[in-house]
This record gives sequence, C-alpha cells and structure tokens, in this order.
Amino acid sequence: MDFLSEYESKELLKRYNINCTPIFLCSNEDEAVNKAKELGFPVVMKVVSKSIIHKSDAGGVLLNLNSEEEVRQAFRKLIALEGAYAVTVQQMAEKGIEVMVGVSENEQFGKFILFGMGGIFAEVLEDYSLRLIPLTREDAEEMIRETKGYRILKGYRNFKADIENLTELLLRVSEMVERENIAEMDLNPVFAYEDGYMVVDARIRIGRERRELRETNTNLIREILNAKSIAVVGASSNPLKVGYSVIKSLSANKKLRIYPINPKLNEIDGLRVYKSIAEIPEDLDLVVIAVPSEKVLQVVEEAAEKTKGIFIISSGFREAEIEYGAEMQNRLKEVAEKNGIRIFGPNSFGMINVGWMNASFTPMFNEMKAGKVALVSQSGGICHYIMHNFRDVGFSYIIHLGNRCDVDFPDIIRFLNEDERTEIITLYIEGLDYSRELVTEIKRCSKPVIAMKAGKSKKADKVSKSHTGSLAGDYRLYVSSLHQAGALVVENPTQLIDVARIIEMTGFRGGGIAIATIQAGLGFIALDEIETNGGIVAELEENTVRGLKEILPPITMRENPLDLSFSGLNTDLLKESLNLLQNDSNVGAIMFLYAVSPPSWIIPVEVFIDVFKDMKKPVIVVYSSTDEDYNHFKSRIEALNIPVFSSIERASKALAVVSRWLADGRANGSIEKSSAEKK
Amino acid sequence: MDFLSEYESKELLKRYNINCTPIFLCSNEDEAVNKAKELGFPVVMKVVSKSIIHKSDAGGVLLNLNSEEEVRQAFRKLIALEGAYAVTVQQMAEKGIEVMVGVSENEQFGKFILFGMGGIFAEVLEDYSLRLIPLTREDAEEMIRETKGYRILKGYRNFKADIENLTELLLRVSEMVERENIAEMDLNPVFAYEDGYMVVDARIRIGRERRELRETNTNLIREILNAKSIAVVGASSNPLKVGYSVIKSLSANKKLRIYPINPKLNEIDGLRVYKSIAEIPEDLDLVVIAVPSEKVLQVVEEAAEKTKGIFIISSGFREAEIEYGAEMQNRLKEVAEKNGIRIFGPNSFGMINVGWMNASFTPMFNEMKAGKVALVSQSGGICHYIMHNFRDVGFSYIIHLGNRCDVDFPDIIRFLNEDERTEIITLYIEGLDYSRELVTEIKRCSKPVIAMKAGKSKKADKVSKSHTGSLAGDYRLYVSSLHQAGALVVENPTQLIDVARIIEMTGFRGGGIAIATIQAGLGFIALDEIETNGGIVAELEENTVRGLKEILPPITMRENPLDLSFSGLNTDLLKESLNLLQNDSNVGAIMFLYAVSPPSWIIPVEVFIDVFKDMKKPVIVVYSSTDEDYNHFKSRIEALNIPVFSSIERASKALAVVSRWLADGRANGSIEKSSAEKK
Repeated sequence: MDFLSEYESKELLKRYNINCTPIFLCSNEDEAVNKAKELGFPVVMKVVSKSIIHKSDAGGVLLNLNSEEEVRQAFRKLIALEGAYAVTVQQMAEKGIEVMVGVSENEQFGKFILFGMGGIFAEVLEDYSLRLIPLTREDAEEMIRETKGYRILKGYRNFKADIENLTELLLRVSEMVERENIAEMDLNPVFAYEDGYMVVDARIRIGRERRELRETNTNLIREILNAKSIAVVGASSNPLKVGYSVIKSLSANKKLRIYPINPKLNEIDGLRVYKSIAEIPEDLDLVVIAVPSEKVLQVVEEAAEKTKGIFIISSGFREAEIEYGAEMQNRLKEVAEKNGIRIFGPNSFGMINVGWMNASFTPMFNEMKAGKVALVSQSGGICHYIMHNFRDVGFSYIIHLGNRCDVDFPDIIRFLNEDERTEIITLYIEGLDYSRELVTEIKRCSKPVIAMKAGKSKKADKVSKSHTGSLAGDYRLYVSSLHQAGALVVENPTQLIDVARIIEMTGFRGGGIAIATIQAGLGFIALDEIETNGGIVAELEENTVRGLKEILPPITMRENPLDLSFSGLNTDLLKESLNLLQNDSNVGAIMFLYAVSPPSWIIPVEVFIDVFKDMKKPVIVVYSSTDEDYNHFKSRIEALNIPVFSSIERASKALAVVSRWLADGRANGSIEKSSAEKK
Repeated sequence: MDFLSEYESKELLKRYNINCTPIFLCSNEDEAVNKAKELGFPVVMKVVSKSIIHKSDAGGVLLNLNSEEEVRQAFRKLIALEGAYAVTVQQMAEKGIEVMVGVSENEQFGKFILFGMGGIFAEVLEDYSLRLIPLTREDAEEMIRETKGYRILKGYRNFKADIENLTELLLRVSEMVERENIAEMDLNPVFAYEDGYMVVDARIRIGRERRELRETNTNLIREILNAKSIAVVGASSNPLKVGYSVIKSLSANKKLRIYPINPKLNEIDGLRVYKSIAEIPEDLDLVVIAVPSEKVLQVVEEAAEKTKGIFIISSGFREAEIEYGAEMQNRLKEVAEKNGIRIFGPNSFGMINVGWMNASFTPMFNEMKAGKVALVSQSGGICHYIMHNFRDVGFSYIIHLGNRCDVDFPDIIRFLNEDERTEIITLYIEGLDYSRELVTEIKRCSKPVIAMKAGKSKKADKVSKSHTGSLAGDYRLYVSSLHQAGALVVENPTQLIDVARIIEMTGFRGGGIAIATIQAGLGFIALDEIETNGGIVAELEENTVRGLKEILPPITMRENPLDLSFSGLNTDLLKESLNLLQNDSNVGAIMFLYAVSPPSWIIPVEVFIDVFKDMKKPVIVVYSSTDEDYNHFKSRIEALNIPVFSSIERASKALAVVSRWLADGRANGSIEKSSAEKK
C-alpha cells in the first residue's frame, strides 16, 4: 500500500501539467500564514501525519479559513494531532461541476481509467465510464460522452464544462499512469469549469508488474488444428463413451491417420488400437485425451515428446470443486512450455476444423456447412447450441477452449487473423485470464471481431467462478475494454452469430437503415427494435421522399419506414421504391419485411430475386411464411448474399448493433465506413 | 385556460389536507407586515396581477425578506407593477429534497399523474413515473419506488424523505383531481423532509368533460363473430383479388351460408352469386365488404338494415393521406349507431374464429390450431407474422381491428372475458382512441391480459399517425397505464405470444426461477437473460443446496443455475435434483436447458417424460438439436403441458417478464400468487 500523500500526489500531477489546487507543506505557523496570504483567503488546511488515515474524521481538515488569525489557530490545532509533523495549506477552489477521475488495476485487464460525475450522480446512479489504459484521444472523448452527466457537462442551464480540457486531463492521466507505473489513483473531486478544471484532491499508489502470457506460434497452432496424424488416448468401443465418439468424429475424414490408444482393446470400428503412445510408428500432430482427470498428467507427459499439440477433453481440473484441480492444471502448462508444444483444454468437448477434421466428441457435427465464421468459445454447451441453431451459417473453425491451461483466446485470435478461410471471428467469453492480451490481439486483428461476455447478471458473477475457475469480473470493464479494442460487443449467443452472418453476407459498411415493407405493422416493430437497440435509422433525403410520393399512392406510408401496402405487389413500383431508398446517401442498408398472405397478397420469390439481384447496398430480409415456403425462399434469396430471417426482432437487433458499431467509428478489422456514414 | 392563482390553488389544496406553505393575500402594506410577523421571517412576497404571466421575469417575486422594512419596500415595489391589485406573503420553506407532482390530461387516457424528482434529476434524467388517475395506494407506492431518485428518497447520506407522507400526498391529489375535475396541476417544487413534506408552489387548471365510447353489447359481438349467414360484397372469381380470397377462406366451413355479391357474376367456385344484399333471402349475421373505399359507405347503408355486423376490409379511410378519409370513417360509425349494428375495420384483413370461421382474405389460415389464446391486433401484418411464426400455439380468435371506426379494443376485451374458449388475451396496440376505457376493461377482465405497444421509438411516434390515423402518444404513458391496469406489458410480438404460451401451458403462479442444465454455458445465458430482463432468480434454500451437494459430485455446479454436467445422464440423479429444486419454497418454476450431443451425452426423450411427468411446479424446457429431433421432442414434451423452446434467449426473456409481473403483485385476471412468492 504505497500511497503517496496528497502533497506528493499533486507534485507528481503537476509534472504532467495537470491543474491542481496549489498546496504547500508548512512546518511552522509563520510559514502557513505567509503561504495563505500568497494564495489568498479563504484557504484549506490539512494535517500531515503518518498515523492518521482518515483526516476528516480525525478533525485534520479545516475549511474556509478567512484570516491570518484563523490560519494560526488552525495550525496549532492541527499540529497537535496524533503523529502530526506538518500541515498543508491550499486554496479553496472555486466550486465547479464535480467530476472524478480514477485509475485502478484489475487482475485480468491491468490498468484502467474511470471517468464519472461526482457527488450524487456517481453514487446513486453509478454514472461512470471505463476504458483500459493507454487511452487514445477518441477513447477519452467517448468516455466523457458516454456518461449520463454529459448532458450537464456539454452545457445545461448555468452549468457548462470545458470538455476539451477534461479530455486533455484524461489523456495526461493515462500517460502518467503508464510512465510512472501507477496502480491506483483517485482525483476526486475535480471541479470542471466553463474554462478549465481543477483537481481538488488526489491520492496515488505506485504499483507492481504483472505476469505474462506465452508467445504465440501461429504455425504450430495451424499444424495442430490441421492435424494429419492423431492419437486418441482413452479410445473406447462403447458407443456411449466419449472415447468412442471422438473416434467416430475423426473417422469422417478418411485422410486422417488415427491411432486409438487403449491397452485392453485391439480394434475399434476397423481401426487398429495401440497399447500406448510410444508404440505409434510416427510423430503426431495431435493427441486427444479422454481419460479420467487423475491420469491426464501422466498421459500428457508421455505424449509431449511425440506430438505438436494436445486436446484434453477430460474434466475435473480448475473448474471442479476438488482438491488439486487447479494445481494439476498448472502442471499441464508447465509440461507444454517445457516441451514447446501447445495444449488445448482441459474440460473441452473438442474442436472442429470444418471441412477437415471433427476432433470433438460430437460426431453429429461431421456434416457442417463450411464458411468464413470462426467461433471461439469458452463453453461447449454454447458451441452445441450455436451449431444446432445456426445450421445455415458457414463456419471455418469451432474451437472450445475449455479451461485454457495453455492455449487461450489471444493465441487463437492471432492464428485466426492469419487463417485464410476465416473472415469473421466470434468469441463467447465467460471469464478471462489474459484480458489485456486479448484486447491487444483484437486491436491488432484485421478481421471483424464479435464478442459476447456471459455474466451480465450479478448472480452470474458469483457463481461463474466455480464453473470456469476464473473470475467473471466486472461486466462493464469487459464490455468497455472489448469495445475500446474495436470489437462489436453483443448480448447473447443468438446475436453473436446473427451479427456475424449479416456482416459476412452483406459486407455492410455503415450508414442508416431504411425499412421497407408492404405491411406497416412489421415496419413499426423493426423500427422500434432498431432504434431501441441503438441502431441508426436513416433520415431520408427530401429527394427520396419526393420521389416516393411521386410513384406511390397516398394510401401508403412514404417515409422511413416505407409501407408500400398493395403497391408492393407491383414489381415495377417495388423495384423503383427500393431503388430510391438505396440511392439515398443517408441509407447504408435496407431491411425488407414481408409476411406472406396468399393468394391475393403474394409476391413470388422470382420477383424478389429480380428486384434484389442488382441492389448495390446491403439488403436484409424478414420473411414470414410456412416452414416449407420459408426454407425455399431463404435458400433462393441467400444465394444472392441477402440474409433472410424469420424473426423481425432478431434481424432488427442484429442489424441495429452492427450499424451502431459502424457509426461509432471504432470497428476493428477490415470494416470501413461508407461515404454515407462519414457525413 | 382557467388557471387558478397560486393563492386559489393552495386554498384548494388545503381543503384536501395537503400541506402547502401558508400564503396570505394582502392588499395593503400593514397587512403584509402583520402577516410576515405572524409567519416569521424570512418571507417570500409575490405580486398578484391579472396581466403578468411570468411573475419572476417581471420582478414580481421577492425572496428572503428578513425584516419589517424589507417587507414594506417589497410591497411598494410589487404593487407598482403592471395590473397589480394585491400581494401574497408566504413563508420561505425550509429546503428539503426537491420532488414534483404533476397532473395532466391526455386526449387518449384522460387524467394522469406524474411523480418525479425535481431539479436536475427531472430535467436531465427524465426521472419520473406516470399513472392514470384514480390511484390506489399500491399505485402511489409503486410510482415513488419506480423513480431512480427513490434511492435518495428512501435514505441516502444525510437525505431522507417521508415516503409514507409522499404516498399520502399522491393519493390526496388523485382524489382531489377526480372530485374537482382538475385538468392540469403542477406542484413544483414540493420539498420532502424526513418528516412530512411541503408544497412550495402550485398551479391548477380546471378541466372539461370528454367524449364517450359506445356501450358494448357482448351478445351482439358474439353472434357476429360466430356468424352463420354471411354476405361478401365485392366477391370476385379472380384468384388474385381479395374478394375471391375471402370466399375461399369462408368456404372451409361447409356449415356457413355464404352469399357472394357481385352484379356481374353468377357463380364463384360453385356458390350462387347475388346482385345485391337486398336480393338475399334471409337476414344476415355478417357482411364482409371488399369494395373500393369510395363505395363502402353506400354498401354499409344498404347492409345495415339486414345484418348484425359488418367487417370492412377495404382501406383508404382515416389511415390514408386522402381527402375525406377520416370523415368517411366517422360516417360509418354514425350508420352503425343509428342501426344498432357493429362495424369492424375498415382497413382490416379480417378475423378468424378458429375452428369455426376464417373471415379474412388469407385462406392459408383455414387450418389453424384451436386453443385458448386470443389475439386482438391493430395490424394485419402482425397477425400474419404471429400466425406464421406460432403455428404451435392454439388460438381462439385472431381479430384484426384495423381502423376501429366502431368496434374497438374495449368491446373485444369485454367480449373475450365472457368467451368460454378464451383463457388468455393478447393485444397488439399501435395507437388508441379509447385508452381509458381499455384500461378499465383490462382491470375488470378476469383473464390474464398480455399487451404490447408499438411505437417505443421516437421516430415511430412521428410516423405512426399517418398509418393508423391515430396518435401513438406517449409510449411511457401507455406502458404505465397498461401496467397499472394489471396487464403484462411486453416489448415485441414474439414475446407477446411466448408469454401467453408459458402462462397458458404451465399455469405459472409466481415464485423464483430455478435453472437446471447439464451444460453450464447454457445456464449462464439463461441466468443473464432472466436477470437482466427483471426476472426473479430463485435464491435456493440451504436445505436444497445441501441436498444437491449430497447427491451430486463436486465437479458440478450445485447452486442456481444448477449444472448437473454428466450426472444429468443418470436418470435417478436428474430426477432427484429436479425434485430438490421443486421442493424449494423459493422456487416457482424450473427452466431446464439441454443441447444434445450424441452419442455420449444424450438423454432420450422417454427419460425426460419420465422425469417431468410428475413434476408439480411449472417446467419450461430449452432444447437444442436437429430440426427433426427438436420437433419430435417438442411434440412429446408439450403433451405434458411443458413448453419447449429452441432459443434460450426467447424462453428466458418470456419467463423473466412473467415472473416479474407475478412478483409485482399487479397481475390482472385469474393469476394468483403462490405461497412461494408471498414469502
């Protein structure tokens, strides 16, 4: 607890040109009087003492001293307190809008900075924003804008704060924290004025260093995930055992050389079974382990000499409430480091390199659609949930990291960034060990990263520790940091993949959303859901509205949302209307909604193909019909790279968060803003 | 604009025992001095003038007058102002926490009351709550609790407000508004103290009366919706015309006597076509009209003499940007009233009495599942969306009200409340004409009412006027009033029906939600979504946790969420665990989540049936699998009245809002709280 005193803290702040109320250390009465006169009355005086922790409570803070006599009396009173050896004299700062700036260090994320409103706003409304250090100017500006109190800061009645100088303050704090290795800082209150600001009180603690993640060798990871020779330790011939399921999964690729290991068996499904790893006639790319946890370490030590990588399915390590679980897991990492190999898991259902290898215990996923979306998940259940519910999405890799004894999120993101097939990276995060490294990798990554963090709820925070063996941590800190790194942060697994699908298929690059329908009610729901989820609803240009009014009858709703009503049944009008929308420079994407109502209100799929095929801006369709008709429509329309949803709510929410992400101008990866958005 | 003066307003308030700063009207200097002395210094003095509107701006308010001399000077200054004929003298109230109470009148809802924090909280954070007048004590308590500032009011640092007396204030205002026919009131500021409160300034306006809805004759509505003899005006033999679709829809019931009307045709699909309504040989229950809007009025006048009810499909009335649209619609209502019949629509796709009659232009909905959920919607598109996406739900009626020239929400709710088949009423609302009557009907209704209001977004507010021809109005006022009436207010159409399905199938009566799974990740998502949507997550009793720890190995998560992990593959453990959960008196419902992972992690549907069939508390299941397996599982499990969802997010959100609604203790209808919740 190496706290600097207020005097020392302010001395340090001054070196970084941060405005503080001048403070002087005085060891005798006359000095105090002289300094007070120099500063001008009224002044504040505080005791300096090694033994007093809470100065106010001990009567060690005297405010509003207005004369030489009052200063003298104050000095005598303060110097008589326990352990007092000096007194500080400082100006009473002119009252401004109270804000605060804090710095703290998190086990996962390292140093972060907090900006918030002071007083009642901070305490009752928890009105603050967080970012990791170091800050860019954009980060700092956004932090201030993000608070509710921003409405006051930017000018409200007789209040107004100098936002530019507050931004500068945050940047200087960030720089200072980095250079001076500060672990904790509390500038509270800071008075913000119409012109400038003043740090009134300050408290600083100097920090220590933190541990490091292993260096990532992406070639090694690639070779492991594209293994050709694989051993399965714990292989079984019992169809209900994991050791059988893995063999069944791997067997789908006839090009793999699979070596089941089980001292008691000779053969499984026509494959020769080996007694031990040592017996295998070649070096291995991958060893999959599915034996009870107490045997894992021994197997790993044996395998480490013969393989590039290991995938441990077995559970019963850090996640379990058992003795030595965490210790065993640490030992696994030591073995990996010593042998220069990489270990995935333990407590993982496996991984799928779609189109090459299903190294998991779920053979039903042998037939997955190959594509450009990579899913890296901390939960096997969520992998299953997503794979079942998103059979229409093409994946490159599904990787369940499990307990992450060695390979962790940052390693995989670095690998996927180089991977040719992957264009979008989706992350399901519960709790992290190397959050700062993750943030760094996302920043470096040239592909869009979509992330969700479980543990929004207070209760999750409490219980997830026992599950993943890692701290869920402060949800807001996670979300702020991921956002700061440029990731699109979503709220649930469905949104995670919906968003990836929209970005992948449409290449949406920003701009407002135009809504078009032939049934107004559907348009209203889309509008509500888009706006309330922060999406950018396009303000149509006057030209566009005029154009719509020229071609459509007055019975329709000729704005955004656009309700064509029965005019939508006329192909030419439908085409012209959508064209007017896409030619509007405020429009970045069009959402079209339609609930079929045959025979009188029906638009054949061929008409849609004709209308959509030449569209230059992204189109997203919500189509509501019978299952059979929906599936037919979807396959035809998606061939045009137009995603089709059956749920207005899902499509709208996903599109909303993508448009917000693009509009924020913080998107990582290859996403660039369109000219429409730049306006 | 009949505003009472501050003096008159406070005199009125005093008659209702509402505490105001004493105020005296003084017409001469000596009187002012005497009153000031009587009140005690300091005092406030204000001008009384017919011509000054903004007293402060005109220098007509003088604060903090501390002596006789200051009072005399003030009097002279004030009485010299324009139009001044008197001066008020009142106490400077001791400063308390600033709150405000407002009353206003809305075209739709009539009188409502606002409670909010004063000062910056109100203006920057829009921190207020709304309820319709009259208030119950419960309403008043909830209004105060609902504000963010409640954290300050209930006691924060050196602030604390007398909540009981503030509640009393709201109740007295409500009573006073009703008795005195007050249209507008502004008590602002009100100072709340630790003991009592003081109304410092007051402004009241007396109001006028509002228009009335027709009396509902539910028998007549029943006969119309269960019509046996029906004419279709505008019948067509062209399959792409609405006038053909309606015939096709109706023809599904061979018991109906259908009379197509078209002067140019003799026969449609084997039905004899009549030249005019007059030609039909019997009296009619229903006439469906599908002719261009300009011909509708004439047809209605003709039909009115021969039928009990009319359904107008034609559009081009109040919703359209055309001349006389609204006027034509008003004429329809006049005809209905004059003839004692009821008219539905115009601008409606029709209605479906499931199992009897599809009187709509969408024959594809002839084969709907009959059940207990009624849907009353202001949008035909949303009806189609819901019918397509919820084929698994049994409906009693689907009624598209369209423009509501005559029959409106309150009529239908009153009818459905008496309807034997309907057990749950769902409403999709865009904008209303008789909001107060709707609220009254929901309060009276003995069946659960689930409602969604479109127009959350600011933009919707603007554009919906042109669509439904009615004001979308203040979204918050709608939501507050529907909540106050006891309806469960949901956010989108999917939630509307998900919630109805859960209530209908499970009979959930309140209590906390326990989450059980064999894949922890799924449980976390459910927990997050339930908690962040306001759901009640059960705190397990110590006994339950102890029981779980006795039967389950330490590798699992033995709390809420409960992650059985592979122990869930053991039927006895699964059964015992769920039993422990349902025997916990804090648990009102159990959500079970499972993403299948064959062959090693599979629980056959027969096991689930065995486990679930004797459960006494409601169970909701999320099941993730292939489409085929999912459909099979769903049909088997739903036979036990256990709803099955494929989406964790949807199931969790719906269950969350139901549990919140039950916990709030405001649920209308036959829902009662369980003993678990009463704790």
